[in-house]
Amino acid sequence: MSAPTTATDLALVRLRVEDLLCRYERAIDDDDLESWPDFFTDDCEYGIWPRENDEAGLPMPLMLCRGTGMLRDRVLAHREANIFAPHVYRHFHSGLVVDLDGSRIQTVSNYVVIRTLQDGESHIYQTGCATDTVVEQDGKLLFSGRRIVYDTLRVQTLLVTPI
Amino acid sequence: MSAPTTATDLALVRLRVEDLLCRYERAIDDDDLESWPDFFTDDCEYGIWPRENDEAGLPMPLMLCRGTGMLRDRVLAHREANIFAPHVYRHFHSGLVVDLDGSRIQTVSNYVVIRTLQDGESHIYQTGCATDTVVEQDGKLLFSGRRIVYDTLRVQTLLVTPI
Amino acid sequence: MSAPTTATDLALVRLRVEDLLCRYERAIDDDDLESWPDFFTDDCEYGIWPRENDEAGLPMPLMLCRGTGMLRDRVLAHREANIFAPHVYRHFHSGLVVDLDGSRIQTVSNYVVIRTLQDGESHIYQTGCATDTVVEQDGKLLFSGRRIVYDTLRVQTLLVTPI
Repeated sequence: MSAPTTATDLALVRLRVEDLLCRYERAIDDDDLESWPDFFTDDCEYGIWPRENDEAGLPMPLMLCRGTGMLRDRVLAHREANIFAPHVYRHFHSGLVVDLDGSRIQTVSNYVVIRTLQDGESHIYQTGCATDTVVEQDGKLLFSGRRIVYDTLRVQTLLVTPI
Repeated sequence: MSAPTTATDLALVRLRVEDLLCRYERAIDDDDLESWPDFFTDDCEYGIWPRENDEAGLPMPLMLCRGTGMLRDRVLAHREANIFAPHVYRHFHSGLVVDLDGSRIQTVSNYVVIRTLQDGESHIYQTGCATDTVVEQDGKLLFSGRRIVYDTLRVQTLLVTPI
Repeated sequence: MSAPTTATDLALVRLRVEDLLCRYERAIDDDDLESWPDFFTDDCEYGIWPRENDEAGLPMPLMLCRGTGMLRDRVLAHREANIFAPHVYRHFHSGLVVDLDGSRIQTVSNYVVIRTLQDGESHIYQTGCATDTVVEQDGKLLFSGRRIVYDTLRVQTLLVTPI
């Protein structure tokens, strides 16, 4: 992406990132997981870390995918292999800060996922912070990196769907 | 509304929808329910469905209002007839996706309502998804349709105020 | 700030306020409290009220700081004097309404703070409403007033970090 030069251009970048995040949330919450890898560049890195590891400088992630192939694999595993209770997810984000670093966009945002199980009650499933690198390819914004650090250390069940 | 042609125009539509949703949330949370029908077109349709019905293709809503007259009626009932414990509502939304369909704006967003009762504790009251149709009248955006599907099947008490 | 005259200008004001709120949330959630006073004008007023007092017209706040000196003092107290359990905060806001009043910007928004303690579970810590006055100084938006009214009357522990 060519560097924005005016306040309006910068505001447009923020709006495009907001739109990317929202469509990403929609795809997951609407259980359209097959389109989830399409939000990433081919050579992306997507990982999830517990906060206690991240703060202690321990590199061990809960999950780490390199490339969209691994993301597609994960969706397949979810569809065919995982066994879990039926549930509905709702993603919410706030505190989105967008900064430009040359042609790359660096963003940080808070997220919370609310889950409803079949008993019909809704609970906070997980909250945390996402640090993303976003690039433009063929006029479209994509995540080239998505680093999720979660606060909720007691993950209540198998982490079956993406954050 | 004439169709936006530039990226800036499209971004402005998104911002106007965001502003509409926020003012709508404000009116409800500030207990300014008398202004709630003013967010809709005269011939609007506003309905609330439980997810289990929606997914099973069952058309039965929890509530369905056709036209602002029915919305005003509902506010009157709330003010004069309903008996319920004092409470405060806070609406939050995220994952807003705005798409254009000719002169109509189609939007989807997640919502969560947090409720505080007189005991002073705050709980997730209801979460779900809103699919809205928005049109422009006299330079102002209005909901011509608002279809709410809620995940939280155990509605904790009488659904007394609007979502 | 000179008064915006076009729809695009007004949209930009909304986006700048959104950016201010998000960077403010980031500073607190990232525990960068030393930069917290920098979001305010020197002669700011920052206060927190319980809803029951606010609705009864009682002026007594839970906390009131006049000027950034008092804000810095509070951060110092937090760092050196307060004793509290380790925790992580996540701020979320929604329902942001931005209105212009001459050169000042008046905003209202809902907030919820989710807290995770060391046991690893995440809870709603506090929800409420913030009424802010925002001004432009040297090309930057700052809070000249931030009035927080919280619904969650049972504040679960010492209110140690800012809202």
